[in-house]
Amino acid sequence: MALGSRSSIDGRGARTNIEGAFANRRKSNYYCATPTTVWRVGTTRRAETRGRCGGGNDGGSGGGRSMRVAVVAGSTATARIEGISAAGADPAVMAHTPSADCEIVAYGRPVRSPVVPVSPSGCPTPAVVTRAVRELAGFETVVIDAGLAEPTAAPTVAVDAEPGRDVRTGRAVPGAREIFTAAEEYGRSLPDDELVIGETIPGGTTTARCVLAALGERRATSSSLPENPIALKRRVVGEALDTAEIAAGGAAGTPIAAVRAVGDPVLAAVAGLVTGATAGGTEVTLAGGTQLCAAAALARHAGVDAPLSLATTSFLAADKSADVEGLADDLGLDLTVTDPGFDRESHPALDAYVAGEAKEGVGMGGALALAERRGIPMADVRDHVVTIHDRLLATGSGVES
Amino acid sequence: MALGSRSSIDGRGARTNIEGAFANRRKSNYYCATPTTVWRVGTTRRAETRGRCGGGNDGGSGGGRSMRVAVVAGSTATARIEGISAAGADPAVMAHTPSADCEIVAYGRPVRSPVVPVSPSGCPTPAVVTRAVRELAGFETVVIDAGLAEPTAAPTVAVDAEPGRDVRTGRAVPGAREIFTAAEEYGRSLPDDELVIGETIPGGTTTARCVLAALGERRATSSSLPENPIALKRRVVGEALDTAEIAAGGAAGTPIAAVRAVGDPVLAAVAGLVTGATAGGTEVTLAGGTQLCAAAALARHAGVDAPLSLATTSFLAADKSADVEGLADDLGLDLTVTDPGFDRESHPALDAYVAGEAKEGVGMGGALALAERRGIPMADVRDHVVTIHDRLLATGSGVES
Repeated sequence: MALGSRSSIDGRGARTNIEGAFANRRKSNYYCATPTTVWRVGTTRRAETRGRCGGGNDGGSGGGRSMRVAVVAGSTATARIEGISAAGADPAVMAHTPSADCEIVAYGRPVRSPVVPVSPSGCPTPAVVTRAVRELAGFETVVIDAGLAEPTAAPTVAVDAEPGRDVRTGRAVPGAREIFTAAEEYGRSLPDDELVIGETIPGGTTTARCVLAALGERRATSSSLPENPIALKRRVVGEALDTAEIAAGGAAGTPIAAVRAVGDPVLAAVAGLVTGATAGGTEVTLAGGTQLCAAAALARHAGVDAPLSLATTSFLAADKSADVEGLADDLGLDLTVTDPGFDRESHPALDAYVAGEAKEGVGMGGALALAERRGIPMADVRDHVVTIHDRLLATGSGVES
Repeated sequence: MALGSRSSIDGRGARTNIEGAFANRRKSNYYCATPTTVWRVGTTRRAETRGRCGGGNDGGSGGGRSMRVAVVAGSTATARIEGISAAGADPAVMAHTPSADCEIVAYGRPVRSPVVPVSPSGCPTPAVVTRAVRELAGFETVVIDAGLAEPTAAPTVAVDAEPGRDVRTGRAVPGAREIFTAAEEYGRSLPDDELVIGETIPGGTTTARCVLAALGERRATSSSLPENPIALKRRVVGEALDTAEIAAGGAAGTPIAAVRAVGDPVLAAVAGLVTGATAGGTEVTLAGGTQLCAAAALARHAGVDAPLSLATTSFLAADKSADVEGLADDLGLDLTVTDPGFDRESHPALDAYVAGEAKEGVGMGGALALAERRGIPMADVRDHVVTIHDRLLATGSGVES
């Protein structure tokens, strides 16, 4: 049986055994990427394309393959730990960041959220990039409310999630199984040929590191800050696992237990979504960095053998602490890195990314890969990012921030 | 000041005085349509276009005017009155109809809803037509949950609505003001240049007739049945107004009171949406028949003077009991009627409409007008309606219905 063929995917209606499935997972059946280290400006690098990404008119075209971008949005009290996250200038603003991100993807600017998500130095949220590509490529989107702390005007699908607790409690997501199951059922029911999944949750790189540690996977961790506060994150992860009484690798094969103890609700939802969508015959691309890798790890530990792709940005791929190639290799993810060429022009919205801020998020890497696939010039993407950024600042003047 | 110019619309931040505003409404400032009675297959008839519908690349194109289609979905116990509605074969199925409609618009088929909405004779929901145009034209959509009785997997925006009660209680929508206000705030915050509003609520033509009567407007009423059960509806309306102790026209100028007593939550939400969107500078097209006219009447009675358009289907316009031209004239709505030419081909999905079933709903008339505006041939729309209909029946075999 050819790896990656539809016949290797569980049929619709099959239910994945979540806990304990790890022992039976056939690691040899993972789709094995053979990543190289060379990529070019404006060019997407794929280990293999398997012909499934060739269609240029999928989504909203009436023909071809149907594709959807899901943004899974939530919150964790872990983000309130001083120095952990750049996703918002201060904790009060940060709580609104994922809600505002969803509105930017859905409407092009914050609608109900009283903030314009920018880092302390003025770097705009990667939601701007995802929206820019959406306006150019016209793909369909869905926002999954996986524990938003503040209301959003974006239309959402609920998975019965509450905001996550601080991982240092050792009981970060009490409803992990319910969230996973709701997202799994939703994912299984989707009619789409392809699902691209992004995330927005401040503090998410820290919870991702916790989960990778609990599962015994590579503890790579990116950051939305140019200087990753890695020592702080290590301390938090250590404290979380200690409190939860989980040794490194102690939650291998029990992904729900890992998320419940030291994860966040977005990880629970993405893992469920991946599990359900692949079981339903939908091809899944995880659009992001170490957070999406942690979700992929959870899905692998839940027994998901289906081919999975990871699409990320050149900014994230350049982050050695993220080690996204190592993670993709470990987890059998078909890696795509796309460089939007932000260094080719000078504008505050682009320069911050070149300087290493934000790097990825809200499906940015997946959106850029889609733009590439559909033949949309990266110069057009950059122009449109600048347009939306300037529109944000123009409308943001009257809001609290 | 030219009628219909932006300068005649309330500026952003202005708040419309809801109750009692009717006395001050400047009827002479309504945008006055001059409808004619001739239209052609595949051709949209507009009294005037005022140049605002010329753009063919709005929505998802990265340029031009931004446009969004909102589907306002809810329920009323009024639909359970025997013989009132065709929107579902039996009451248990009917409760799922609006939830399934929203999923069809969002995903192309029911996802979580266990039904495929068809009339007793097999006429597919007009959501199929709206979805068909969406797939061809790629416009952005939003679903407003205005009191759905059953869950939907479609992403939704909430306006804190509960399912509506039977109008014969005289207290049909206790939360009418809260729904109106939430929808108004949402509408006011939308960044779109243009908003097209459709509805899905079984029993909605009866509640619309109640509201028109309470406001003292023309009591025109369409039906999703080929033979409109008009005598039954008259009895229900009479009983509702009697119980509410509202004489015909007794709620003129007090739209919230009218909806609260004898309306439904979708009417409250659409009226709020219209009020907020026009106040925020967004041009509004009501896509539907007498239900959308009733919502327009509520908005007029709430003091909305802005130009409003009504886009409906030739099937609805041919329904004399609906008298949509009379309503549009009374309410100052710029009427557009679009004929998709379903009589040019023979297929069960099309024939039922030609025979007078369904007629309109879920934004069908607005979607057809958009297709026309963007130069999408009606033959392509028909082909795509058939494709989606056949897909529905293929996937519907395994579900309860």
